[in-house]
Amino acid sequence: MIYYNKEERLKKILERGDVFEEKYLQIVLDIITKVKKQGDSFIREITLKFDNYDIQNGLEVDRAELKTAYDSLDSEIKEALEYAKSNILKFHEKQLENTWISESGDGTLLGQKITPLEKVGIYVPGGKAVYPSTVLMDALPAKVAGVKEIVMTTPATNGYINNIVLAAAYIAGVDRVFKVGGAQAIAALAYGTESIPKVDKIVGPGNIYVALAKKMVFGKVDIDMIAGPSEILIIADETANPKFVAADMLSQAEHDELASSVVITNSEDLAKKIEKEVNLQLEKLPKKEIAKKSIDDFGAIFIVKDLDEAVELSNKIAPEHLELAVENPKELLFKIKNAGAIFLGYYTPEAVGDYIAGPNHTLPTGGTARFFSPLGTYDFIKRSSIIQYSQARLLNDADKIIALSTLEELIAHGNSVKVRTD
Amino acid sequence: MIYYNKEERLKKILERGDVFEEKYLQIVLDIITKVKKQGDSFIREITLKFDNYDIQNGLEVDRAELKTAYDSLDSEIKEALEYAKSNILKFHEKQLENTWISESGDGTLLGQKITPLEKVGIYVPGGKAVYPSTVLMDALPAKVAGVKEIVMTTPATNGYINNIVLAAAYIAGVDRVFKVGGAQAIAALAYGTESIPKVDKIVGPGNIYVALAKKMVFGKVDIDMIAGPSEILIIADETANPKFVAADMLSQAEHDELASSVVITNSEDLAKKIEKEVNLQLEKLPKKEIAKKSIDDFGAIFIVKDLDEAVELSNKIAPEHLELAVENPKELLFKIKNAGAIFLGYYTPEAVGDYIAGPNHTLPTGGTARFFSPLGTYDFIKRSSIIQYSQARLLNDADKIIALSTLEELIAHGNSVKVRTD
Repeated sequence: MIYYNKEERLKKILERGDVFEEKYLQIVLDIITKVKKQGDSFIREITLKFDNYDIQNGLEVDRAELKTAYDSLDSEIKEALEYAKSNILKFHEKQLENTWISESGDGTLLGQKITPLEKVGIYVPGGKAVYPSTVLMDALPAKVAGVKEIVMTTPATNGYINNIVLAAAYIAGVDRVFKVGGAQAIAALAYGTESIPKVDKIVGPGNIYVALAKKMVFGKVDIDMIAGPSEILIIADETANPKFVAADMLSQAEHDELASSVVITNSEDLAKKIEKEVNLQLEKLPKKEIAKKSIDDFGAIFIVKDLDEAVELSNKIAPEHLELAVENPKELLFKIKNAGAIFLGYYTPEAVGDYIAGPNHTLPTGGTARFFSPLGTYDFIKRSSIIQYSQARLLNDADKIIALSTLEELIAHGNSVKVRTD
Repeated sequence: MIYYNKEERLKKILERGDVFEEKYLQIVLDIITKVKKQGDSFIREITLKFDNYDIQNGLEVDRAELKTAYDSLDSEIKEALEYAKSNILKFHEKQLENTWISESGDGTLLGQKITPLEKVGIYVPGGKAVYPSTVLMDALPAKVAGVKEIVMTTPATNGYINNIVLAAAYIAGVDRVFKVGGAQAIAALAYGTESIPKVDKIVGPGNIYVALAKKMVFGKVDIDMIAGPSEILIIADETANPKFVAADMLSQAEHDELASSVVITNSEDLAKKIEKEVNLQLEKLPKKEIAKKSIDDFGAIFIVKDLDEAVELSNKIAPEHLELAVENPKELLFKIKNAGAIFLGYYTPEAVGDYIAGPNHTLPTGGTARFFSPLGTYDFIKRSSIIQYSQARLLNDADKIIALSTLEELIAHGNSVKVRTD
């Protein structure tokens, strides 16, 4: 687990999300084309084939079912979800932006108008894994932004959707839920069908077909990001607790064989203790096989000479989750350039952010924290520029506008000024 | 030009950007794959073929050439570009966001860190048309955000890049300029080659190959948006000046045969006057043929019963440029939901925003103002969440985190809390 040759191991970790997509692309393009042309009738055909469900028995979940699912929740779970909701709302309210208009005194009025998106689609994966937390994390920022209608789609094998997912949709205020999954769900949300409304933006994780479909409809609608396998990076100094660090590595590794858990430390002694702890804790995990494969393939403990080198390496990896298990986490914080979420100190395991603290757990993966942000309220608004010129200001600027438009050989642009100032 | 049957004409206008892309897709994917695998040697091969230039004679423009180009500018042009720069900087500085951290008093520290992107690529189209204004609009917001390195690529037929483009790059503070265009330029910026640096985000307009390449590398890097043909929509009441409105329609129409100029008015009398004026002014335009075809194919004057209906129709179209040529533009402003930029009053032709006012002229086209924003400073930063829990707060939340992670069958997530609280 301890790697002295960093370069080679790093390459393997960084390239693990680079799947060759072309083989899936044609399949996804065909599905999109058919949804566009045939609408519901193709949705029926493909859902029957892949989910063994005839949507004529109900494509949309009845609103009453959501409420029933909520009412049937165990009270401890209900309380935990409501608590998470309240924290998520509070954090995302801080991301709200306001329209501004400023009079510049020279006859110009400039500004920026903020408007919430009208309709948003949330994709929720099916399968055995159930993630109510993701429903909250995807829907609540849209609510805070003021989105009018939130539409959820999720595959329903044999027509069945997990009760907890429906309850989470109820808690998050999802407006409509449709029993459709895969690339066909994404195409339906992008183009609309007889039954499924066309939305402005699609968010949420999914398999390779869903990810590729999101990429191919991007531009027709907005999308959040292309999610890859998850990762954690922990910068630990000699004061860190090896038990804590090992547990956090495993919390990432249990997700997925492609997940990556990396520790960077300036203490070889700590490194050895962490390695030992990982092996110990691993034995007792229900998802031992997955976690072991993830650690074997994409786990690493790197030893560096000091914390500055640790930060440099971390910035290169640009991890989704970054824990600073060091004596002075705030000292490191402002040297961090690339990370989806930064967890400070010994008592902030990633799981705190996954569920309850408030910030979003939908984060940029696979090094995309170099340029992508966590999902946030800002994802559910758009901006419009506001410009007003007075006659005097137009007169003042006329020559310059005409000079530039003439240079660009756009004479009618100049004319639009001249008719007003001549 | 006046359409009483709105629906049919509207459909034609709204669908004009819906090009079928699949025939170009394989070409673009091949180019991307070859750039990834062969780097500079493929860039050399394809640039020789399409731009008739051997990059061994210089792939990168010497910095001194930028300065020379700037020094050779006509003083009127220089002054106009510097004035535009100053206004663009001022507006985009208002879009700067700050890192915030808030202590919530319960042992939690939450926040959001703002970090500029490190490297950004700007694509500048080649061909006869020269748009120095676009160089400023794409590069200056990155400068304001604090981007460290701005890399520009542009095709150089026979090795030649227009002097004005180089001068604009100098004014905008572009760091490096490369003589490469098309999908190969986008692939080089996304993956890096021996000579061209890999960037974090690619912005700027281009032809169908460039647009598709941007879409296909999205996720590997960030991109701004997928630009389609340009459009203007003018809401005019009976107080509007038909000469002004006609001139503004033509300023859009001269861009491109696919451009669309639409007027919505509650005055049939004004509609007729505008139609007459368009035909009059059209005659004198150098780009008469283009403008005429654009007006014939995608121009329209729609008559509505009142301004509320006008706004409703405009929100449906979600235009790139929206002019409010009405007596009380501010009254309409807050009913507008979807528009890239909104121009208020009689003395704010679109050209004001294209060149000089300050807000960005890179705007969402083809109805994408439903969900996309103007290019802005926010495009060149990313956010990281900050979370710190105290031991006490972790103890307080432990049961809820464990309940939710158990529900999601992520036992190691729960363990990462338990090792700290047991």
